[in-house]
Amino acid sequence: MKKIWATVFILFLTTALYSQQALWGNQDITSPEINSDGTVTFRIQAPEVGKVQITGDFLPSQKADTPFGPSDAPGVADLVKGDKGIWEYKTPVPLAPELYSYSFIIDGLKTTDPNNVYMIRDVASVTNVFLIRGGRADLYKVNQVPHGTVSRRWYSSPKLNMERRLTIYTPPGYENSSKRYPVFYLLHGMGGDEEAWIALGRTAQILDNLIAKGKAEPMIVVMTNGNVSQEAAPGESSLGFYKPTMQLPKTMEGSMEQSFPDVVSFVDHDYRTLKSKQGRAIAGLSMGGYHALHISKEYPDMFDYIGLFSAAIMPDKRVSSPVYQNMDEKLKVQFSKKPKLYWIAIGKTDFLYKANEDYRKLLDERRYPYVYRESEGGHIWRNWRIYLTEFAPLLFR
Amino acid sequence: MKKIWATVFILFLTTALYSQQALWGNQDITSPEINSDGTVTFRIQAPEVGKVQITGDFLPSQKADTPFGPSDAPGVADLVKGDKGIWEYKTPVPLAPELYSYSFIIDGLKTTDPNNVYMIRDVASVTNVFLIRGGRADLYKVNQVPHGTVSRRWYSSPKLNMERRLTIYTPPGYENSSKRYPVFYLLHGMGGDEEAWIALGRTAQILDNLIAKGKAEPMIVVMTNGNVSQEAAPGESSLGFYKPTMQLPKTMEGSMEQSFPDVVSFVDHDYRTLKSKQGRAIAGLSMGGYHALHISKEYPDMFDYIGLFSAAIMPDKRVSSPVYQNMDEKLKVQFSKKPKLYWIAIGKTDFLYKANEDYRKLLDERRYPYVYRESEGGHIWRNWRIYLTEFAPLLFR
Repeated sequence: MKKIWATVFILFLTTALYSQQALWGNQDITSPEINSDGTVTFRIQAPEVGKVQITGDFLPSQKADTPFGPSDAPGVADLVKGDKGIWEYKTPVPLAPELYSYSFIIDGLKTTDPNNVYMIRDVASVTNVFLIRGGRADLYKVNQVPHGTVSRRWYSSPKLNMERRLTIYTPPGYENSSKRYPVFYLLHGMGGDEEAWIALGRTAQILDNLIAKGKAEPMIVVMTNGNVSQEAAPGESSLGFYKPTMQLPKTMEGSMEQSFPDVVSFVDHDYRTLKSKQGRAIAGLSMGGYHALHISKEYPDMFDYIGLFSAAIMPDKRVSSPVYQNMDEKLKVQFSKKPKLYWIAIGKTDFLYKANEDYRKLLDERRYPYVYRESEGGHIWRNWRIYLTEFAPLLFR
Repeated sequence: MKKIWATVFILFLTTALYSQQALWGNQDITSPEINSDGTVTFRIQAPEVGKVQITGDFLPSQKADTPFGPSDAPGVADLVKGDKGIWEYKTPVPLAPELYSYSFIIDGLKTTDPNNVYMIRDVASVTNVFLIRGGRADLYKVNQVPHGTVSRRWYSSPKLNMERRLTIYTPPGYENSSKRYPVFYLLHGMGGDEEAWIALGRTAQILDNLIAKGKAEPMIVVMTNGNVSQEAAPGESSLGFYKPTMQLPKTMEGSMEQSFPDVVSFVDHDYRTLKSKQGRAIAGLSMGGYHALHISKEYPDMFDYIGLFSAAIMPDKRVSSPVYQNMDEKLKVQFSKKPKLYWIAIGKTDFLYKANEDYRKLLDERRYPYVYRESEGGHIWRNWRIYLTEFAPLLFR
């Protein structure tokens, strides 16, 4: 008997590293390394390549020629080759607390860092990420606080005659309570989907941390898919694995707005929600801001809190949906019902700055009240995360 | 008024591609391309590099020298450089239906395919994936069938004095039912975590598809984290982003087994479960098979269905946990209670084959009934997905 129990455990441990097929070809170095002084060192072992560069949003941006004239492009820095073919780049200065993204450029080819498994997808690009702790960035990290639940759910949209996928955050304690919670609908931009806010926007971490600090009310956050031609994010529908594209049909032609009550009905049916205007907020970034603007205007009794983050404002004149007719009258109705908060935020260098300025002028002329937040920077996720950390604390108070 | 509504929409569309920072540097090619005849073409645009190769589990494996003697290593093929610096490799034959993984090797550097956003992480390696439809592989894809919900939840483990994360699948219809469901606990291997089965194992797709075909009972599937020194998967705990390692402390020394009732209590409390032996199954791969063996033996009234997938069997003799004492007596008790299914599966070339053979001999000598499934291949995810598709239909019938 004892003989049969003779173990293969040592063999298991020693061969395990080799046996796991996916471990083959791995590098035994650390990249990125956050140094104690706040600088960051990037490394890659590539003895045979001629040149290694890094590009990322922590590098000073540079001017680049584009089809639309000169514009900002992410900065690029060279790595220096050292022993054993290990290339290295260390930032000259400490980096401010933030969630950063970067890619390596290997002899002109942009690719991922093989020593960093943390990546985010934005449309068809996958980049590596790292986080410098401190300040606002501590809201983006997982801390030892009570955690909400993040679920991927499918719901029926009768209006679209489609089963569709969404991401839903329920706050800590939701499952062991009989309480009803307010709901915040949070919409992505063009090229995004129901994974965008949870991955790029760090919604679960931000909400967990704000709620733990008492800075935001416990709330449900619903992250929808704003491309109504899609059932779900790329790779998550019956279309299988395909290359995601920026522009999809039926994103800004009224269908999202007209079918949105299907989402609200589903959430109110399947979750313990406050089923009232006072218990609902909606916000979105870029195209999602456009959706939030028009949805809140079409259903003026549905949302008491509206957030436009770097919002697109108006449809193409060729779009003939009734959603975009009689805008003046509809806005008048919406503001006559006195929403508790109409919040507009945009970065100073955002290409939608002028459109938002024009829209604010219109609201000013009509004396429709809103809160305006102008930030540095442009049309980037860094700003949208900031806006979320500032908008969520204003809700349901 | 009309003037103010003058649109920036066209500007928005035309600049959107450039403005989105993450889109910078993208390639306008498709890779991989699944051809109509079942062959697959891989492409990468890299005019400046000297050599591009591909390695993946669809290529014939090759013998490689290792510290443990000759062993199988993934095959490698060369891409050929064509116009515009686009390198290409087309498989010489159609590929059988399967979920495959691969990497490019750029002048000796193993990295990801910049045109394929679909990736899986296994320990510290990220590889691209693609799926050839048909046969069993149709169970791995998202089909137009009712979909269950996948949630990431945190629970309290009093035994470990820790908040821990798990992944839980609830079957289609769970949220709109008052029915109680059976629960299948599904455990990962060394180097894995609560993300392993859902990502690499395609658990949600397999369950959705089997349930839709009537081949599996609707069930809850709980995917735990078997590294009891960890709160959560890499990147999902307060440790932040760090390089994952294969071997962690406290994985096979009894703590996982001793704390497992905390998981069952949590699930039975927070979900509508069948709270009985008949309503519970447990299975695991490799280290998770070891956990399933020992947990089911330690708590002989807890599980009626036990699955050992390429299981490690016995602990290191230096491990002194009471969990591994009196094995003979405990197995006798477990089998005297007649579990409905004790299922052992392993591949012919698995390095744990002999250990499993010895264990089966022991069960045979004691006349303890079990079902044995021997497959081709070794210690790889392809087999663990197959075992899941075969084991799940046997449960709760």
